This record gives sequence, structure tokens and C-alpha cells, in this order.
Amino acid sequence: MTALDLAEVTLARAAWSRIVEPGDVVAGALVAGVGPVAALRWLTAMDTGPASVRHGVRRLCDHLDVPDAGARGRMERAVARWQPRLAGLDPRRELSVLSRLGGRLVVPEDSEWPRRLTDLGAGAPMCLWVRGQAPVAATLERAVALVGARASTDYGERTAAELSLGLGDRGFTTVSGGAYGIDAAVHRGSLAAGRATVAFLAGGVDRLYPAGNADLLRAVTQGPGLLISEVPPGSVPSRVRFLKRNRLIAAAGSATVVVEAAWRSGSLATAALAVDLLRPVGAVPGPVTSMASAGCHRLLREGRAVCVTDTDEVCELAGGLGEEGVAARAREDSRERAAHRPHDGLDPATALVFEAVPVRRAAEVEAIVRAAGVSPAEGLAGLGRLELTGLVRRDGAGWRRTVT
Amino acid sequence: MTALDLAEVTLARAAWSRIVEPGDVVAGALVAGVGPVAALRWLTAMDTGPASVRHGVRRLCDHLDVPDAGARGRMERAVARWQPRLAGLDPRRELSVLSRLGGRLVVPEDSEWPRRLTDLGAGAPMCLWVRGQAPVAATLERAVALVGARASTDYGERTAAELSLGLGDRGFTTVSGGAYGIDAAVHRGSLAAGRATVAFLAGGVDRLYPAGNADLLRAVTQGPGLLISEVPPGSVPSRVRFLKRNRLIAAAGSATVVVEAAWRSGSLATAALAVDLLRPVGAVPGPVTSMASAGCHRLLREGRAVCVTDTDEVCELAGGLGEEGVAARAREDSRERAAHRPHDGLDPATALVFEAVPVRRAAEVEAIVRAAGVSPAEGLAGLGRLELTGLVRRDGAGWRRTVT
Repeated sequence: MTALDLAEVTLARAAWSRIVEPGDVVAGALVAGVGPVAALRWLTAMDTGPASVRHGVRRLCDHLDVPDAGARGRMERAVARWQPRLAGLDPRRELSVLSRLGGRLVVPEDSEWPRRLTDLGAGAPMCLWVRGQAPVAATLERAVALVGARASTDYGERTAAELSLGLGDRGFTTVSGGAYGIDAAVHRGSLAAGRATVAFLAGGVDRLYPAGNADLLRAVTQGPGLLISEVPPGSVPSRVRFLKRNRLIAAAGSATVVVEAAWRSGSLATAALAVDLLRPVGAVPGPVTSMASAGCHRLLREGRAVCVTDTDEVCELAGGLGEEGVAARAREDSRERAAHRPHDGLDPATALVFEAVPVRRAAEVEAIVRAAGVSPAEGLAGLGRLELTGLVRRDGAGWRRTVT
Repeated sequence: MTALDLAEVTLARAAWSRIVEPGDVVAGALVAGVGPVAALRWLTAMDTGPASVRHGVRRLCDHLDVPDAGARGRMERAVARWQPRLAGLDPRRELSVLSRLGGRLVVPEDSEWPRRLTDLGAGAPMCLWVRGQAPVAATLERAVALVGARASTDYGERTAAELSLGLGDRGFTTVSGGAYGIDAAVHRGSLAAGRATVAFLAGGVDRLYPAGNADLLRAVTQGPGLLISEVPPGSVPSRVRFLKRNRLIAAAGSATVVVEAAWRSGSLATAALAVDLLRPVGAVPGPVTSMASAGCHRLLREGRAVCVTDTDEVCELAGGLGEEGVAARAREDSRERAAHRPHDGLDPATALVFEAVPVRRAAEVEAIVRAAGVSPAEGLAGLGRLELTGLVRRDGAGWRRTVT
């Protein structure tokens, strides 16, 4: 693709992102089928009114060899909802607003396009309106989505910040939604680690929403992080756009972790989208008395999420291999080792014999055999093994333990 | 079975419970095969020494038609470990100790035998040494095992006591191990509810172990609860007996719930035994910062337990039907209802239209259609539906919301 072609494609996709609502799969299929430029030309050349639309759609479907009447009907209805937005369409103006903010538009035809978003198929965004200096694809190469309730607790925010910090130390970018509560703690944790964090916004990237997080979101763009939206500057963050935005968060990470969520929470929707995308989902448990953890417990209870309690477990979920995996294994080993007792791993009869050997005084073999409930032969063999491993020693005519 | 026969069987089983260590499956199979009285007669008639034992085992195996040399070898080794305990065997004395404590011996031949223990097969206890007035089978008919760490936190103990209390209110007996920490909180919760609780002890029921729980364990026997052990009075609670005791706790309840457990804890062994017995296992989550919840999170993470956060969820796990199930369902419904918003359940286009209708001022249809990203027809249909359900109303030439 020449630079000129890319400029034309970019402009067409910018226009499409204004014309359609996020996740419009009819538009996605159309643009994938004929390309964004031709698709836009076709749409803008059509008159309004049912007859013109029917005619235009028939011509397109004949050209694309789509005989299915259902598909034609869907396309006609789609055109009817796109046309009202063609009036006043001016992607150049929106691109110049973005440019003044230091931003840029990234399209699937770019090398910068994050590959995981293609998993969204026809529901993938038309383009990404991006603020921040970091390259998008590289920033999201190793990424985990951490999401959670706006109505969070100190416990949840602390846990979110710690996971975010730990993930940053292991080279993971965090992905969240820029909201109050858990989202904000996630972004803050990565910023504190000096690592990349990406906030997918439901409205335009010119609106640092919610207002209380404006400083935080600005700090994200000034570090190695990014603000990304699929809707153009000036777009309001509507409820439907919040719900659609969640699919970008779920798709952008190799795993999604819910840190805190009430029984019914938008974060559970994000988790469900991640499950649909075959992404592993984790949930952080909390006190059963905390309503802010009820949604996490619900995910665990319904088997839709794996229990994660620290950075290593999140890395494991996200497929973080190499050093992280080794570190996690070493930690597990050291946990096991710390809890290992000298008489662990004895065969059953020898364990019974060990139990029956007194600590404070010596006991004779017959007494040990009777107390242990083993045969005299097992008793002698067990005492022999225990003596070899240094757990018991002879004392006069009897035996006693060297350890408790 | 006549009363005389039952008395003989009871005496023989009391003897067997002294001769063998808990869970001796060779003894279990022998007693099941020829009956406790004949098995004891056979054992006590045999001389010690390899030749006598080999001869005695061969005669028995011929009689039982067991041609397998492996089984003979196992039986010979078993006899060799039982014989040292035949010296000084006096079950009548142990029964009289029990009787002085107000206790009684319950055997599988009794109607009082709790049916769930038969799931242990050849590893089932020979008999139960019981203190307390309540009938054993009826007390354990509806029962849940609640177990956990001795090194518990306030959070864990409070949760254990609340679950125990709630289970009592729903007619469930709690089963635990009489230890410090979670076990004690479980027994206390049931006592507070005036409901039955059963402590399975690793040592004899004459020893109220640990000493610091002596008052609590005594209170259990004075209420509708029971202290139960499979080893006779005078038996010390050895480490092996603790581990074997756990299988009785796992078997006695229709479900096992781990309230708090460290990364490596005896409670996890009890949970594993419950899984082996095909009993559902629950784990109570807690703060990820609490080491006392690490074992519970491990069970959840490894998919070996279901996340349970309140009494209703434990009842569901335990198969508590009837009123409890209905109550749980009602609670879930009310949770859903509490979180339900008026615009939930709208079809996608109507939801987009609702979003696009302003709250503070009226907007005209075209503006709403453009903002919503729907066709004019969808916009009109959506406004009609929303007006019917009272979510929007006409205002001059336009429309506005009646709710936020």
C-alpha cells in the first residue's frame, strides 16, 4: 500500500467510525469485503429513501455475489441507520482535532495495529483514535486487562495497584477503562512502575472522562501509556458505548482479571466477553463480607474465572513464560519447602513407627511396635530407616527421637 | 440379630478398634468377610511366629476361597502387626470407662450407625466410641463438615461461626475436629444456635484434646451434640490418627467446606478425602493478603472446590432442598431485582434510542436518530416503545426522558 493509499484508507475509516456505532458487524463485513474507501464511496453515492437504498444494496450484493435475501435486508436496514450520519461528515476536522492533541489515527492496514483486536472479527473497530507516544502494537504485545468496580474498596484498589505494579515489573502492559475505582488504581500502579498502561475510553479521546480522572489520564499519555477510543473526538461516552468499549478491553489483553465487582457489574460483562474470545479470565477473591467482591466470587462459583491472588498467578493466566514462570515455580517450591517437615515422605509403616518413638525418653522396640500398630519386623525395619535418616537414635536399650 | 449377639459383636468390634490402627483395610475386609466375632476368635487362637501365622492365614483363605497369593501375603503382614496388641486386650475395661463418662459404643450392626460412613468401604471404622445423648444416625442425617486452620484469623472464625449458626437454623448438624481456631468456632456457632455439632476426635473421647477446648467439648456433649472417636478411651491423638480421623469428618457430612487454611494445611487433606468420596467441597475465599486463606484460594484455583460465601451457598452444596433452596432462590432474585434498571431488557436499537434521548431538554426525532446511529424507522419505532413503557415522553416538537 502506498502512502497515498494509506492516507485515503485512514480518512475513510475515520469517516466510518463516525457513521457507525461501535461493533456494527454489518459495516465491519462490508468494509472487510470491499475495502473502506470503496464502501464509503458506495454509501455516500446513494440517495435516501427505501427505493434508492434497495437499488443500491441490490447492485452491491450482485457485485459481491450475495444471493441471500436475509443479508440484503440486514444491509438495507444498516444503510438506513448510517445515512442520517452522513450529513455534516467531516473526518478531516476530527483528525485535525486529534492532531492538535498530539494524537494519531491507527488503522488495521497499519503495522501499528494490535493483532489481538482482529479476534473481534466483523465487530473489530474501524480504527483507533490514539493519544500517547508509544507504538500501539508493541505496547499491547504483552498485555493483561485488569478491570473492576467503580465502587471499590481500599482492599480492591490496593490489590489492583499491586498487581499492576507487579505486572509492569514483569514486562506486561495493563489495560483498563480509565474509570474511577479499580480502573484508576490499575493505571496508577503501572504509572508508579514506570510501565505502559492503556485506557480504552467509551467517548472521544479529547474528553478525559470522568473529569475526576483527567489528571490521571493525561499522565497516561505523557508516560509510555496510551488513551484509545474507537469513536472520534467529540463523541459522548454513552451507556451503549461503555458496553461496546468493554469488548476492546477484553480483546486487547491476553487475559482479563476482575479485581473487584459487585454482584451485578459491568466488569462481569467484560469477563463474559473475554470468555467469548477464549481469553482466560481471572477473579481476585476478597472477604465474603465485602459486597465489592460478590461479583468476583460469583465468577469463581460459576466456574467462569480462575482464582488469582498475586502477580505470578496473573502471569501464569496470561501465558507469561520465561523468567516469570520460573520465578513462580521457585516461589511455589519455596512455599512447599518452608512447610516441609523432616518426617514427610516416610512410607506409612515407618511414619507410624516414628510417631510411636518418644521424644523425652527412650522406649523399647516391643513398646514402640505395640504403640505403632505395626509388626515386629516392620518396627525394626522402620527404626533402621529412621536411624539412617537421623530422625531417631538408640538410647540405652531403647530408641528416642532426635527431632519433634 | 439378638441382643446377646449384638453384645458379642459390640465387644468384638471394641477389641478390633484397639488392635488395629484407624483405616486398616485388611482388618476391614476380614471383619466384613467373616464377621467381627469369628475374625477375632481366629486371630486370638493363632500363635505368634511366621510359621503359625502362615498356617492360620492359609486355613482362613482356603475357607474363604481366596487363592490370591498377594492377598495372603498382605494378611500375613497384617496379623504380624496386630498380634503385638493382643497382649493385655480388655475391651470390657474400656467400655466401662466409656460408660462412666456417659458414653456408648455404636457399631455398624446398630440402627444408630450413620449411613454415610459406609462409603469408606473397608476403611470404615470398626465402631464409634460416642459421648453425648443424641442418636448418632439421626444427628448426622443432615450434616455439613466445616473445617479449617488452627491458626485462624478473626475473619475466619467469624465466618465459621456465622456459617455454623446459619446451617443450624436450616436444620443442619455441623461436623468438625474439635481443634483450636476454625473447628472451635464451628462448634461454638452450632452451640449458640442450640443445634447439633459433632466433633470427631483423633484420640479417645475420654481425652478432651486440646486441653484449651475441654470446656467447649464438654459443652458439646451436654447439648444436642456428640464427641466421636474410632479409637478406644486412653488412646493418644497421634499424628497418623489425626490424618485418619479426617476421613471420618469428610465422610460424615454430605459436603465439606474449608473456611480458612494455609497453603499447606491438614484441612486440604480433609478436602481431598471428601473429593475421593465424591462429596462436594466448598472453599470460603478471603483477602489475598491473608495467608490463612491461601489454602482456600489454592483449592479454588485448582478447581477442587466451589466458592462459597454464605449459608445459602453451603446449603446448595450440601443438597439442602426444600425451604432452604427456595430461600436462596428468592435472595438471588431480590439481588437481581435490586440491580435492575428500567431500561434493562430493551432490544438493541431501542436501547440506542433511549440513550440518545436527552434528560434535561427535548430533542427532535432527526437529532435522536443521528445520535443513536439508527435508521429513522428504528428511531420512530423505538420512541414508540419507550413512550409505551413510560421511559420517554413527548415535549413540544421533541422527546425527553422521564427517567435517567
